[in-house]
Amino acid sequence: RYGLAEKEDQVGVVTGLAWTSVGGDLLQIEALKLPGKGRMKTTGKLGEVMKESIDAASSYVRSVAPQIGVKPPKFEKVDIHVHVPEGATPKDGPSAGIAMVTSIVSVLTGIPVRKDIAMTGEVTLRGNVLPIGGLKEKLLAALRGGIKTVLIPAENEKDLAEIPDNVKEGLEIIPVSHVREVLPRALVRMPEAVEWDEEAEEAAAAAAAKAAIPGQGAVAH
Amino acid sequence: RYGLAEKEDQVGVVTGLAWTSVGGDLLQIEALKLPGKGRMKTTGKLGEVMKESIDAASSYVRSVAPQIGVKPPKFEKVDIHVHVPEGATPKDGPSAGIAMVTSIVSVLTGIPVRKDIAMTGEVTLRGNVLPIGGLKEKLLAALRGGIKTVLIPAENEKDLAEIPDNVKEGLEIIPVSHVREVLPRALVRMPEAVEWDEEAEEAAAAAAAKAAIPGQGAVAH
Amino acid sequence: RYGLAEKEDQVGVVTGLAWTSVGGDLLQIEALKLPGKGRMKTTGKLGEVMKESIDAASSYVRSVAPQIGVKPPKFEKVDIHVHVPEGATPKDGPSAGIAMVTSIVSVLTGIPVRKDIAMTGEVTLRGNVLPIGGLKEKLLAALRGGIKTVLIPAENEKDLAEIPDNVKEGLEIIPVSHVREVLPRALVRMPEAVEWDEEAEEAAAAAAAKAAIPGQGAVAH
Amino acid sequence: RYGLAEKEDQVGVVTGLAWTSVGGDLLQIEALKLPGKGRMKTTGKLGEVMKESIDAASSYVRSVAPQIGVKPPKFEKVDIHVHVPEGATPKDGPSAGIAMVTSIVSVLTGIPVRKDIAMTGEVTLRGNVLPIGGLKEKLLAALRGGIKTVLIPAENEKDLAEIPDNVKEGLEIIPVSHVREVLPRALVRMPEAVEWDEEAEEAAAAAAAKAAIPGQGAVAH
Amino acid sequence: RYGLAEKEDQVGVVTGLAWTSVGGDLLQIEALKLPGKGRMKTTGKLGEVMKESIDAASSYVRSVAPQIGVKPPKFEKVDIHVHVPEGATPKDGPSAGIAMVTSIVSVLTGIPVRKDIAMTGEVTLRGNVLPIGGLKEKLLAALRGGIKTVLIPAENEKDLAEIPDNVKEGLEIIPVSHVREVLPRALVRMPEAVEWDEEAEEAAAAAAAKAAIPGQGAVAH
Amino acid sequence: RYGLAEKEDQVGVVTGLAWTSVGGDLLQIEALKLPGKGRMKTTGKLGEVMKESIDAASSYVRSVAPQIGVKPPKFEKVDIHVHVPEGATPKDGPSAGIAMVTSIVSVLTGIPVRKDIAMTGEVTLRGNVLPIGGLKEKLLAALRGGIKTVLIPAENEKDLAEIPDNVKEGLEIIPVSHVREVLPRALVRMPEAVEWDEEAEEAAAAAAAKAAIPGQGAVAH
Ligand SMILES: [Ca+2]
Ligand SMILES: [Ca+2]
Ligand SMILES: [Ca+2]
Ligand SMILES: [Ca+2]
Ligand SMILES: [Ca+2]
Ligand SMILES: [Ca+2]
Ligand SMILES: [Ca+2]
Ligand SMILES: [Ca+2]
Ligand SMILES: [Ca+2]
Ligand SMILES: [Ca+2]
Ligand SMILES: [Ca+2]
Ligand SMILES: [Ca+2]
Repeated sequence: RYGLAEKEDQVGVVTGLAWTSVGGDLLQIEALKLPGKGRMKTTGKLGEVMKESIDAASSYVRSVAPQIGVKPPKFEKVDIHVHVPEGATPKDGPSAGIAMVTSIVSVLTGIPVRKDIAMTGEVTLRGNVLPIGGLKEKLLAALRGGIKTVLIPAENEKDLAEIPDNVKEGLEIIPVSHVREVLPRALVRMPEAVEWDEEAEEAAAAAAAKAAIPGQGAVAH
Repeated sequence: RYGLAEKEDQVGVVTGLAWTSVGGDLLQIEALKLPGKGRMKTTGKLGEVMKESIDAASSYVRSVAPQIGVKPPKFEKVDIHVHVPEGATPKDGPSAGIAMVTSIVSVLTGIPVRKDIAMTGEVTLRGNVLPIGGLKEKLLAALRGGIKTVLIPAENEKDLAEIPDNVKEGLEIIPVSHVREVLPRALVRMPEAVEWDEEAEEAAAAAAAKAAIPGQGAVAH
Repeated sequence: RYGLAEKEDQVGVVTGLAWTSVGGDLLQIEALKLPGKGRMKTTGKLGEVMKESIDAASSYVRSVAPQIGVKPPKFEKVDIHVHVPEGATPKDGPSAGIAMVTSIVSVLTGIPVRKDIAMTGEVTLRGNVLPIGGLKEKLLAALRGGIKTVLIPAENEKDLAEIPDNVKEGLEIIPVSHVREVLPRALVRMPEAVEWDEEAEEAAAAAAAKAAIPGQGAVAH
Repeated sequence: RYGLAEKEDQVGVVTGLAWTSVGGDLLQIEALKLPGKGRMKTTGKLGEVMKESIDAASSYVRSVAPQIGVKPPKFEKVDIHVHVPEGATPKDGPSAGIAMVTSIVSVLTGIPVRKDIAMTGEVTLRGNVLPIGGLKEKLLAALRGGIKTVLIPAENEKDLAEIPDNVKEGLEIIPVSHVREVLPRALVRMPEAVEWDEEAEEAAAAAAAKAAIPGQGAVAH
Repeated sequence: RYGLAEKEDQVGVVTGLAWTSVGGDLLQIEALKLPGKGRMKTTGKLGEVMKESIDAASSYVRSVAPQIGVKPPKFEKVDIHVHVPEGATPKDGPSAGIAMVTSIVSVLTGIPVRKDIAMTGEVTLRGNVLPIGGLKEKLLAALRGGIKTVLIPAENEKDLAEIPDNVKEGLEIIPVSHVREVLPRALVRMPEAVEWDEEAEEAAAAAAAKAAIPGQGAVAH
Repeated sequence: RYGLAEKEDQVGVVTGLAWTSVGGDLLQIEALKLPGKGRMKTTGKLGEVMKESIDAASSYVRSVAPQIGVKPPKFEKVDIHVHVPEGATPKDGPSAGIAMVTSIVSVLTGIPVRKDIAMTGEVTLRGNVLPIGGLKEKLLAALRGGIKTVLIPAENEKDLAEIPDNVKEGLEIIPVSHVREVLPRALVRMPEAVEWDEEAEEAAAAAAAKAAIPGQGAVAH
């Protein structure tokens, strides 16, 4: 059962690329945002390295929250669940990092991910994209699955020499070196940045709290 | 000891289908809703993959809560316990996913599950139904156990060619590709959706809180 | 050292039946209710399956709390400790389920358990009783230990054909298929049900809270 | 290095008896009560069975708290640390149960334990004393260590036939079947029971709380 | 893929030096400061010894907080995430200790780390620098990666005799024996110390709290 | 790399003595006190027995807090981090117990530890000092490292017969049987005891709390 591209643009749903001993495959990544307390849940028989890559993706997103239109306190009021179907298949490795970032940004902003794009690349805490293995197998799987555009790490560009011509002709292959090159291509539109000045917010919060203190409202005697 | 269909429609009780080295069997799934704090407990010697499938089922249900008539804050006030008897038999795998979704929806809404239906299918965080193994053995177990209707993943429809005619004649076999095709068939009636507008709710909550603040009630001097 | 029946009716003390490679034995189960926060502690070198059977027993009891005269908020104010002496002997398996239910109901209600009754049977989250193994060895141990009455799963009734006549004559053997057949026989008296209407309770709680708010009591100026 | 009896009566310090492949030995048990939150800490390379025996001892003591002069809310305000020196030697087994009970009662009440008494016996949640192994080796170690009185389980009384006469003459050996026979012999004096009526206490607590509510004190206008 | 020096001075990004069976390499260390509750997260397939070295680095930094311009309560309001890419490569050992200190100080103060410096050295809780292994391989990797300055433990100075001349000529090698020699070289500027007198702070906090108490503000009747 | 005595008297820094298959060595123990919540952190690749010895040391110190000038509530406001460099070397065993006690007392009181003293001895919860192994190797390491005074367990005094004369002449060797003989020799000065009467403190705390209650201050109408 080979993976196929999604049929519609969806929020939180990103297509990654997996490389195993039997070849490449598409990797559907799903994320949900739920009312909660800032917890991150991950399921899908994920190994420790993949779980850590989700942690790194999540911290990166938190660190750029205002740039994607999310005020930081939001993170304390939601739980995020990242799931990688098919649940019986073990998955591991860091190469889904930029897909994880994209999935988390999508659920936080409510902006869908383009259905015909796939991506592979480790992400660092600063949003840098690191090279991955199995490029050839991953591109073949993307082509077979109906993907139109594939984002790959800039450091893997040199490996394109070994890729068959028909694959390179059938896919738009875009090398990226930072998440800021990923999001504009993966999301159907870019989120607008929000002003976030921690001190101003604290002042506002304090004012709101004061208004609610008994005996300090408009009590006339 | 072969499993048999339930004798009455019950809340939280769903019949799944298991496939082991010695053939297929019915899998009774039980769920209870208890006053609590949003905790999920699972018992019945369940493997990690089955536990994760319950996590995914639970998050899916939370994500569609208003559609099934449940206001999201409800989740923070209940604990849900999912148990799969017989407690000494190890169980694993993701294929009970849609049965887990049905069981959780049933206990949250108080709507019973039809007694003569069984189901098999992995569920994703979006409610998609993924294919499973052992279809033949599972259908034989369903027929033997007195089940009338079996929900199977649409992607397994192609495997029906290998199923003996008497089995296909003795069972109503319904392929499904999303949970939204499962619930109307599995529940004795569908829950009504509830309006849920997070901002309106927050306003209401704030108003209620204000009314309770000392010195701001109707105190006449 | 063979187990013997208890010498008096006691609260929280139930006689189960164990089956090991060297035969059957009585299994004393002890429970205590302590002021606490809704925690469950289990000791006695119990395996995972037996611990899960205590979880299932506990959830079943919580789900029928008003029927046994216990208001649900009570559970958040007590800890329950279930211990199975002899602490150096490993114990496992689900067959002490109905004994665990009986023990928990006894400590919660303060109603003693009859001293000359023993019981064996897995319990499900709905209170159904599932069959067990080692019936013959367990009944021999009961007889040897001075037990008068043994509750067994209805599904094990067919195994009575293989039990020696002297055992069947020396014991009152009662097949049960649900916990509701267990409690009236095991407890020295049945608890009275309590009215529990969640909404009424919430209203009462709110009223009590309001009365305690400063500035809203009977303050005359 | 053989263990020796204590040189003075001390609070929380009890002499147990250990039985290993190389013979018997004294086992000094130490407990401390610290300001805290109801936590129990155990150290001394203790195996799971010995840790569980401390849990059982602790729950038993909590269940009889008013009888030993301790009001139950006290338990939420103290931490208890039970340590068994020599920290590099693994210890396990349930036979130190009654010594653990004695140690915990001693620290809670501040009443010292007699220096020349040793004890061995598993304890159940109800305070019953269960038989132990290695009686001969343990009694030899007690005699060698300068112990005068040894408490043993009543069920081990039959094993005294195999004990050499000089040991039986050199020690006062007292069989016990319940903790209530242990404490009067082990403590230098018995604690006085305290009245504890949960409802009266709740009323008192509520009254105290009310007095502290702003606007309800003696404010004259 | 050999590591290269950073292209710009960045906050929280420090270049460490690793030594493996296949030679030396640069080790990029990244840290982020996020709004939070004083938690420390570490990712990058780190072994226990490296995780402990981050704990020690973190405690050292907390112990000198006012000296680096950070008021201690700050630590309870932020989470720090330390990540060491490449996520699939296991890393261990204590020798990144001073790099960890530098990374944590950089994120807390917002002061960037010089891009062309690398460092190796275990750190103790007092900030002392302990010797490391693989000096030759590490220096070769630094030279190859474009590093200009390397900080090494003073106790490793004696090993410089074995280092090829071209390496010693191509790098500025600076022996250090305490973190206080590391920070002025690694940070683009030194943070200013802040006055921190715990008692004065407590007084200020109490005054602020008092001002917010209802009925004690400037209420005119 | 052999350990050397410290160069100055420092707070929280104590020299222990280790004994391994390759001989004896000095063991620097470092402790820090940080603003916190009563947590204890331990690092340095410590085995379970050494971690438990730190737990025992910590509880002992808490139990004598007023005697060393520390009011018990202090413990709930600080975290203590105990680290044993060199982080890649596994350490275990209980023999650093009295060194751990000394280190914790030093950080809590702020009183430095003498630089030229080393110590070895297991500590019990009551502060008793138990014998250790490897005395000869440990003393050799102390002499080689420039230590002047070594505290050893009184029960090891008999082993001094086997120690070479030059070692005994080069070191002041002091047998101790309780922590109260350790602290006056190890600390540069003894802390002064503080009055601590739990009931008086509670009264004071209650009075302070009352003063802060709105509507009960000096409000004139
Ligand atoms: Ca696939
Ligand atoms: Ca991967
Ligand atoms: Ca079955
Ligand atoms: Ca399955
Ligand atoms: Ca037995
Ligand atoms: Ca059993
Ligand atoms: Ca000994
Ligand atoms: Ca024992
Ligand atoms: Ca590399
Ligand atoms: Ca290293
Ligand atoms: Ca050394
Ligand atoms: Ca040691």
